[in-house]
Amino acid sequence: MTLSARALAGIPEVRPGDDLARLLADAAGSDLRDGDVMVVAHKVVSKAEGRLRALAEIAPGGEARGLATAHGKDPRQIQAVLDESAEVLRAARGVLICVTPHGFVCANAGVDASNAPDGCLVLLPEDPDASARQLRAGLRERTGARLGVLVTDSFGRAWRHGQAEVAIGCAGLAPLEDWRGRPDAEGRELRATWIAVADQAAAAADLVRTKDSGEPAVVLRGLERFVTEEDGPGAAALLRPEAEDLFR
Amino acid sequence: MTLSARALAGIPEVRPGDDLARLLADAAGSDLRDGDVMVVAHKVVSKAEGRLRALAEIAPGGEARGLATAHGKDPRQIQAVLDESAEVLRAARGVLICVTPHGFVCANAGVDASNAPDGCLVLLPEDPDASARQLRAGLRERTGARLGVLVTDSFGRAWRHGQAEVAIGCAGLAPLEDWRGRPDAEGRELRATWIAVADQAAAAADLVRTKDSGEPAVVLRGLERFVTEEDGPGAAALLRPEAEDLFR
Repeated sequence: MTLSARALAGIPEVRPGDDLARLLADAAGSDLRDGDVMVVAHKVVSKAEGRLRALAEIAPGGEARGLATAHGKDPRQIQAVLDESAEVLRAARGVLICVTPHGFVCANAGVDASNAPDGCLVLLPEDPDASARQLRAGLRERTGARLGVLVTDSFGRAWRHGQAEVAIGCAGLAPLEDWRGRPDAEGRELRATWIAVADQAAAAADLVRTKDSGEPAVVLRGLERFVTEEDGPGAAALLRPEAEDLFR
Repeated sequence: MTLSARALAGIPEVRPGDDLARLLADAAGSDLRDGDVMVVAHKVVSKAEGRLRALAEIAPGGEARGLATAHGKDPRQIQAVLDESAEVLRAARGVLICVTPHGFVCANAGVDASNAPDGCLVLLPEDPDASARQLRAGLRERTGARLGVLVTDSFGRAWRHGQAEVAIGCAGLAPLEDWRGRPDAEGRELRATWIAVADQAAAAADLVRTKDSGEPAVVLRGLERFVTEEDGPGAAALLRPEAEDLFR
């Protein structure tokens, strides 16, 4: 089996209101097929959806000012993080580890000033699974191809250094492949094999983008067996409820 | 930029004492180049290194018997897990979450009966970074190619469902790419971008293997920029010390 990943060149700076599906279809040209997976860094999705906040328009409250002082940060940025958080788990070394309203656990609730317009913060999409579904429909309309679509972000991990790209939105791709109870090569039951396909696809795509390249989209070919007719359960299916989580 | 991943067909069942570098070189044929990355599922590495335990030869102690009764498991298997653990963090739903002597946090200390010889358990390699270095040297000798080599396993994650393949051994590949302090596309500092290259490469490779395919090795092409002359710090560099870990 083979997999290929190629970064799409020529996507212009994305602005609020832009038709991102059209920009992606134009950048991909005629080379999109049924079963390809379009992996899009959330930042351009957020920009197209207007999920930006101007620092100048943020009035930090008392909690944000306190945290900003304690951690040497801009209180307006902290206020934006608090506004995007359902819960703050920890605050240390200038980073807040937050649970977002979607249920993601990540640094600063995904609020980021890098690769953002001047004086602005980029927020996570309000509903990244809906964003993925919408992009999928738009890409199908424009290209005729039945694709899987992932919206991704880089998350830090427990126990391990560094960040890995994960799926925060997913449409038309099975987010998990369940081998639990299926036999291994010698016919024995594979006990605990439940593969985070969407996260692994996000990670694969990240390897062909450099963070300063301005190449927010990658086409993966070779994952046809995971691409579905239905939009499916989305990246929400990847969230592990606390009661089932032995790893945190 | 592009990346390709292809699973190597034709690797026979690996047995203790087998020359794994030779088996991998034979399976790859003439199509290996400087800068390719050979990703090998740890299970064949462990088998070649004789890191197997026969269940019949394990005498479970009191702790193992107690855990086995509480969790409905084979006490000999639990004893093997305890023997491979520096610390058991949690025991629930038939799974022990362990810290291995290497410092990895994973289910059952990586001890696994699936895809194992009959009546045997497969353990993690004793020193997976050394295994990767040895494979790298062996592959260079046989093919002339300066490769990166990863030894991988599937780990569960905190906060998210499913398992993702990660690097437990690494040679000749930069395990992490550090963009912290480097500028983004608009010249602003990228604050927290520290990319777990080796784990993302492990995940990419996993997408072309099915768990019952008997294809334990994958060649990645397109990561030349991360492949180094030196063997480098290995996967040990991916371990996040508890004091620095905000995500657990």
